[in-house]
Amino acid sequence: MILNYDVIVIGGGHAGCEAACAAANMGAKTLLVTMDMNKIGQMSCNPAVGGIAKGQIVREIDALGGQMGRVTDATAIQFRMLNVGKGPAVWSPRAQCDRGKFIWKWRETIDHTENLDVWQDQVDELMVEDATSAAAESQPTKRAVGVRTIWGAEIHAKSVVITAGTFLNGLMHIGRKMVKGGRIAEPAAERLTESITQHGIRSNRMKTGTPVRLDKRSIDFSKLRQQDGEQRAYRFSYYPGKSGFSGTLPQLPCWECYTNPDVHEMLRSGLADSPLYNGQIQSIGPRYCPSIETKLVTFPDREQHLLFLEPEGAETNEMYLNGFSSSLPMDVQIEALHKISGLENAKVYRPGYAIEYDFFDPTQLRHTLESKIIEGLFFAGQVNGTTGYEEAAGQGLVAGVNAALKCVGTEEFVMRRDESYIGVLIDDLVTKGVDEPYRMFTSRAEYRILLRQDDADARLTERAYEIGLVKKDRFDWWMQKKQAIEEIVEFCKNFPIKAKEINSALEKLGTTPLQFGVKLEDLIARPQLNFQNLMPIIPQLREFIDKLPNRKEEIAEAAEIRIKYKGYIEREKLVAEKMHRLENIKIKGHFDYNSIQSLSTECRQKLTAIDPETLAQASRIPGVSPSDINVLLVLMGR
Amino acid sequence: MILNYDVIVIGGGHAGCEAACAAANMGAKTLLVTMDMNKIGQMSCNPAVGGIAKGQIVREIDALGGQMGRVTDATAIQFRMLNVGKGPAVWSPRAQCDRGKFIWKWRETIDHTENLDVWQDQVDELMVEDATSAAAESQPTKRAVGVRTIWGAEIHAKSVVITAGTFLNGLMHIGRKMVKGGRIAEPAAERLTESITQHGIRSNRMKTGTPVRLDKRSIDFSKLRQQDGEQRAYRFSYYPGKSGFSGTLPQLPCWECYTNPDVHEMLRSGLADSPLYNGQIQSIGPRYCPSIETKLVTFPDREQHLLFLEPEGAETNEMYLNGFSSSLPMDVQIEALHKISGLENAKVYRPGYAIEYDFFDPTQLRHTLESKIIEGLFFAGQVNGTTGYEEAAGQGLVAGVNAALKCVGTEEFVMRRDESYIGVLIDDLVTKGVDEPYRMFTSRAEYRILLRQDDADARLTERAYEIGLVKKDRFDWWMQKKQAIEEIVEFCKNFPIKAKEINSALEKLGTTPLQFGVKLEDLIARPQLNFQNLMPIIPQLREFIDKLPNRKEEIAEAAEIRIKYKGYIEREKLVAEKMHRLENIKIKGHFDYNSIQSLSTECRQKLTAIDPETLAQASRIPGVSPSDINVLLVLMGR
Repeated sequence: MILNYDVIVIGGGHAGCEAACAAANMGAKTLLVTMDMNKIGQMSCNPAVGGIAKGQIVREIDALGGQMGRVTDATAIQFRMLNVGKGPAVWSPRAQCDRGKFIWKWRETIDHTENLDVWQDQVDELMVEDATSAAAESQPTKRAVGVRTIWGAEIHAKSVVITAGTFLNGLMHIGRKMVKGGRIAEPAAERLTESITQHGIRSNRMKTGTPVRLDKRSIDFSKLRQQDGEQRAYRFSYYPGKSGFSGTLPQLPCWECYTNPDVHEMLRSGLADSPLYNGQIQSIGPRYCPSIETKLVTFPDREQHLLFLEPEGAETNEMYLNGFSSSLPMDVQIEALHKISGLENAKVYRPGYAIEYDFFDPTQLRHTLESKIIEGLFFAGQVNGTTGYEEAAGQGLVAGVNAALKCVGTEEFVMRRDESYIGVLIDDLVTKGVDEPYRMFTSRAEYRILLRQDDADARLTERAYEIGLVKKDRFDWWMQKKQAIEEIVEFCKNFPIKAKEINSALEKLGTTPLQFGVKLEDLIARPQLNFQNLMPIIPQLREFIDKLPNRKEEIAEAAEIRIKYKGYIEREKLVAEKMHRLENIKIKGHFDYNSIQSLSTECRQKLTAIDPETLAQASRIPGVSPSDINVLLVLMGR
Repeated sequence: MILNYDVIVIGGGHAGCEAACAAANMGAKTLLVTMDMNKIGQMSCNPAVGGIAKGQIVREIDALGGQMGRVTDATAIQFRMLNVGKGPAVWSPRAQCDRGKFIWKWRETIDHTENLDVWQDQVDELMVEDATSAAAESQPTKRAVGVRTIWGAEIHAKSVVITAGTFLNGLMHIGRKMVKGGRIAEPAAERLTESITQHGIRSNRMKTGTPVRLDKRSIDFSKLRQQDGEQRAYRFSYYPGKSGFSGTLPQLPCWECYTNPDVHEMLRSGLADSPLYNGQIQSIGPRYCPSIETKLVTFPDREQHLLFLEPEGAETNEMYLNGFSSSLPMDVQIEALHKISGLENAKVYRPGYAIEYDFFDPTQLRHTLESKIIEGLFFAGQVNGTTGYEEAAGQGLVAGVNAALKCVGTEEFVMRRDESYIGVLIDDLVTKGVDEPYRMFTSRAEYRILLRQDDADARLTERAYEIGLVKKDRFDWWMQKKQAIEEIVEFCKNFPIKAKEINSALEKLGTTPLQFGVKLEDLIARPQLNFQNLMPIIPQLREFIDKLPNRKEEIAEAAEIRIKYKGYIEREKLVAEKMHRLENIKIKGHFDYNSIQSLSTECRQKLTAIDPETLAQASRIPGVSPSDINVLLVLMGR
């Protein structure tokens, strides 16, 4: 049987769902091929979206017309804004979600996307032809023309997007037991990798893992510390329109608990049977989501590790033990678990496990995520060596957009490093490659004050509207919001403040009195002052904000940050330029990196291993962040 | 790792979920082992519960304190009472359900059941020991002591319940393509059967299948006939308490469409590649859910077959094409589909497929569903050769109860044939065995006027309360309802009707006027009269019913049926007794069964093949129903 589409997306996870929706919303006739329609958008690991830098990516996806933010809003059972004690560059929204409802909200989203069909099947062959259009020598000589499935369907398309997650030759491990599978209880895809690599695309293996799932009824919560969400209902989606945050799910707390020396002793007793340490697993796992056994080996002196016990849903008893990922033998995992205060009688639904899977070296990709070797073939998500739902979804969106653009012409959609975290992510992937699962951090961005969670719409929505990815209703809302922000900024720029009228209030707020009259924006620039505490003093400001159309709080915040950090933003730009000039300075042999405490552990290991010739080379080593380069720059100055 | 339980249930489908809840509610420390906690209670085939005779089973499960009725009520998107034009013996409730929400409602139910734990893993070995307690010679010499899983867990228990559905050596077929799996996108269990049969338990193969799933957006509904649900919100659960019908889901229509000669021609063109007709599948499928290709072969002269297009959920576009089950090559299925009026452009999510799986001859079981060969080992559902969610759930409940009772003593829970359809089902299974998937029908029951959907609580709730399966709150509600019914019956028995006061109203209602005064019950016995049309004439009746505590309509209906069909019930009992006396009459060689039009096709085939010596033998042949015996009895009289 033969089906014909513009774009085929293989895999219905976070990358695949965004890719499919983006391609379809761009007008391409799109087919999502997934093994299991009950698992669309499944959160395979922790039931949470966002977090440091990841939350910014979700905001960017939303600003671009993507879906992850809306699905999260509709299924959230706890919202928090992380890092609010620090500057707005690192504020990061995060939500716990209901795992089951998240799947079905994604399913509903996919179901109601025009131009998007779904085919439940398993792809086991990429169809490739010789490229006839190769004009220049540098262009690929092959192109993807479709896929074949295990059930014998043949699907033709102009673009094929691979978002297979951990399914390619997936092999799961618990202790010395190994079972083939793409995820627990799901079959692996065993032939697809080979049909790709036979055309000269390199693949390698990575590893990831997940912790035990516990029964809430068996936890002694009196021994754990409760961590509530925030009262203010933060949203990931900027767009207040339909399918926004439903607000109907009960908001639930998370809980903190700690490992201890007894737990560690029990875990260590299993190391001989650990697939990570007995040679069974050779591939590298995510550094920033290490297994608990890896933490013990990496930090042998630590007497405790913090764990978070997170709810899996509004109605279920299932809980996720964040930080306790493991592939130790199950009896070791469970006996160790029972030595944690509060979890002495914890009942386990299933132990943690590790999974090894194929990924493809992302330096073989262009910034559009199209293969340099096979035209029309795109890769996104874990198959590019990343970790994280948000990183996957961001790539998915870019791959989906470019897969759709590919069908109609030569225009491409690439975001710069100063434009989005997604731009940073993809530039890092295709420029530096990966030698371990890549996770986003704010420190990976040189221009992080420009890449805030509050302004992703300002950065991206108009551009996305121009290419047709954002629709009119959403664009109109942004234009309305944009105007409102500009009016606030203008108001603050012009509104005169008289010293004698405000000085007693300023003193009460712990800030220096004025000597001369100023404009309101000058007050807002002071660290002690903000809209919140100025509004009671300046009724005209309150009136101005009360007049806002919708999402008052969010709009006011965006304006306030823009006014307050204006100078900081300019300073950051200068630093960035300076760094560029100095990047070619030779450093080879200058340092004993391991002695430089201000570098991250990762950076020290990588610099030691590679011993780069120049700062420029150092900056391209995977895992060496712009902040690390800055540290070296300072040391070079001495 | 070793876990210890009283009862282990293997498989989280309809049988397993009821078994696990029943055992746990009986107080047994119970573990449900399931491959995938996202698929608990998955409706593998049509998204509907109930129907002819099956609806009665769901009512019985509910009356016994089981869960299927409540889960159905909470997730229903269409309710209908089938057969209301016929006598109340065959009234059968049926509901379309939201497939996704059904799973999560079951998950919630399991999660909140005390004494019940869940372990996500795959069992691949039954652990058996020599029985030490075998006192009499007839008792089994072996007993089940636990299971081992693919991940190396060893779970000990006093009772083990196998509810593995189609997962044992599952092999799926679409045309000539074959893929191992327990269900689409799920792995098969490949070693468990062998670990059971090595102890002398016989297994064999059965086959079932499922149709294509369609995208609602691609259907031309103007060419289909709409079939709405009923306004009256029938419920499966008798218990008005918590977790009853939520009533929040939108109620949706089903749609009728028809095959035609063009469709048939296309389907026939694929027969050479049909696994059912090219020898690829040797096992037998469900007679009353045949594939569309089987219908064409069995009824070559029919020019059309009725199909139902059913919604899969409240928010999804997925629709189920009931009646179009197939394992023909996918292009044949889809091309044929496109020749159906209204489905010309139908988009397919996935084609239909067939699956072969292992079952165990149920004549090897006792009425408790315990193995005669291995003590403490119970079987329920498709592994006993039945088909249908309801049949599975009913067996699951009985197996779960008896698995729990086994842990504490020798008491057993067995229902008689005049007590429940579940009793009929199990008696049929263990007495007659199966040579094709067994489905319940009202005609399989001799005492069907006693086994009504309205009175399952009257038949079963008190008995279930005695053994601890039904809890106090539910029992109290039944006692309240029981009293209310008895008061209505008593009221109608004593309430005097004067001829002259009512005769004009009786004439208007098309029934003979009275010559003398009667009691109200005498009027209700008339076919033209019922509570509905008598209430406006007899205000005291309306007052009496208005006073009822809750579920007025349901209680009044139960009382009315009891009054109205009193004579009929007694007559049915006499017929049943007469049949018993005559059952040993010799019939061998008397008939050319194929010429007896009043016998069902199934019965004619079976009688011809087996040519029974006596009516008694005939009555025990699988597929020969009591109604068929009655037909033979009448012919014998000639």
